Amino acid sequence: MTGDDEALVGEDAIIALLRPLAGPGGLGFRDDCAVLTPRLGTDLVLKTDPIAEGVHFLPDDTPEDIAWKALAVNVSDLAAKGARPLAYLMALSFPSAPTRSWLTRFAGGLAQAQAAFGCTLLGGDTDRRQGPITISVTVLGEVETGAMVRRATARPGDLLYVSGSIGDAALGLRLCREPGLEQVWGIAAEQAAALIARYRRPLPRLALGPALRAHASASMDLSDGLVKDLGRMLRASEVSGLLQLPRVPLSEAVSVVVRKEPAQLSQLAAAGDDYEILAAVPPVSAAAFEREARAAGVSVTQIGHVGPAAKAPLTISDADGNDVQMQSGGWDHF
Amino acid sequence: MTGDDEALVGEDAIIALLRPLAGPGGLGFRDDCAVLTPRLGTDLVLKTDPIAEGVHFLPDDTPEDIAWKALAVNVSDLAAKGARPLAYLMALSFPSAPTRSWLTRFAGGLAQAQAAFGCTLLGGDTDRRQGPITISVTVLGEVETGAMVRRATARPGDLLYVSGSIGDAALGLRLCREPGLEQVWGIAAEQAAALIARYRRPLPRLALGPALRAHASASMDLSDGLVKDLGRMLRASEVSGLLQLPRVPLSEAVSVVVRKEPAQLSQLAAAGDDYEILAAVPPVSAAAFEREARAAGVSVTQIGHVGPAAKAPLTISDADGNDVQMQSGGWDHF
Repeated sequence: MTGDDEALVGEDAIIALLRPLAGPGGLGFRDDCAVLTPRLGTDLVLKTDPIAEGVHFLPDDTPEDIAWKALAVNVSDLAAKGARPLAYLMALSFPSAPTRSWLTRFAGGLAQAQAAFGCTLLGGDTDRRQGPITISVTVLGEVETGAMVRRATARPGDLLYVSGSIGDAALGLRLCREPGLEQVWGIAAEQAAALIARYRRPLPRLALGPALRAHASASMDLSDGLVKDLGRMLRASEVSGLLQLPRVPLSEAVSVVVRKEPAQLSQLAAAGDDYEILAAVPPVSAAAFEREARAAGVSVTQIGHVGPAAKAPLTISDADGNDVQMQSGGWDHF
Repeated sequence: MTGDDEALVGEDAIIALLRPLAGPGGLGFRDDCAVLTPRLGTDLVLKTDPIAEGVHFLPDDTPEDIAWKALAVNVSDLAAKGARPLAYLMALSFPSAPTRSWLTRFAGGLAQAQAAFGCTLLGGDTDRRQGPITISVTVLGEVETGAMVRRATARPGDLLYVSGSIGDAALGLRLCREPGLEQVWGIAAEQAAALIARYRRPLPRLALGPALRAHASASMDLSDGLVKDLGRMLRASEVSGLLQLPRVPLSEAVSVVVRKEPAQLSQLAAAGDDYEILAAVPPVSAAAFEREARAAGVSVTQIGHVGPAAKAPLTISDADGNDVQMQSGGWDHF
């Protein structure tokens, strides 16, 4: 009888299990606030993006995976801005007190994610309320002053790139919900597991930072679907763009599914949770951008280009160059 | 038919109503992240403290009051650290889409609070999930490098002070829940309204910042009750302390109630939501601290003093100097 499966009693017991995650400015979670001394010549880059059970993760996801995702989805935004992660704050909300076992594993997942992304926990809060378990992370990163890569600065003529591959997480989520679907799709068990991992453990593309800062005129991370997020970049930049659907990079597993069900391609281009990076790069810098991305271990693929302001900001074309009409506009909570 | 009472459709509609709150680093909420250029020679002071319906505010509180409280409880921590508010991020979670009317009033309350506290909205997130409406604010303040007033640095011999008066918000909350109680207590309708206002619209003691930075060896804000929070300061500082209950400052309305029901005094000393400041001040600085607080328009009252480390960190004494045993240890979510 270890008590590991009993609910923790008191906020102090919860805080104690998270204390090993504290960075120097966290003051051991023994103060009202955290403190951070910014480095000379840097800007702070900030983001807050909570995740909730049943909305952003599934009830049977492991505590380690939930912790990883809570931090990763925020760090992904920093990656898209060319920023380096520094620290984060976290508010935890539980409908009932977590067990020692759950929270220990959750802290373990955070420790892994912190180490992978290079940041520490500054402070936070915990409370009990009805509704799903919620983890609200606010992350802080740094870039040299003025060097943050913006979203609203894409220019006509820029080439559009995405990192990695699109649609893995969306199919991974479907596999979580409908076990056995891998047999319908005709993909191997390892491929199915890899797709699910892409849903549960997104990998922020931090390695792409130097290439983005050096060459991208604009960039953003993809969380609500390529089509919707690209539309946002184009509208914010007051330009138009062409997305060439057949150029969208797919993993081997997703390629198998799309060959079997060709209609999936446009659905996956509108699906969320990719956490890849969309970048607009001037043609003159394209070769250097591709070279530096490759050297950093991140594949990038040109998927279209930016045009002048137009009535319809986004055009999507198929293999024959014909316009594609999208049925779904991407993820929207409301 | 204005549509003001219809639910908003789409995240963009929600963001549009909040856009007037954006500060310069918020980039009009049209980017993945916000950016902040810290001032040379300053530290950033950070805090995150969400509030949820039914836990931190009541379902029939007005949207303006909810917005005010969401920001005020976070700014109160900055005030206790001697920091000046700069900016905040906010994640909003709704079980169903808010109406235009509700969100417009909520944004109005935030605009008021921002103006009062001197900060702007940097960015945030909104999503829909089951459970209570939740507002998760992360606030950033600044102090001169190294000047943040800590919690864990109270020293034996320091005098203990609190700002304002204690217990108003706790009685205000009881009045919200039990209308008519003011007649039982024998307080005027205006006094009852003032107590309720103290619950709904806490006023961070930002004006006390210079006096705290100049004279306090330690300070913190009171959110979970004077007794519990004082215990935290003493334990963090590895000292002991004496709280003289009859010295605890009470508003006129609370004094009336305590005269009628003397047992209330120790209950109010353990009740939460005061958002006053607890400070430890060396005797040599006490006169200057009191003078500067008064000049800043904030009353401060000596309620006890700090002693050397002891087995029981906190002793509470009554009017006759006898020890008081507390029945409640203050607010704990778990």
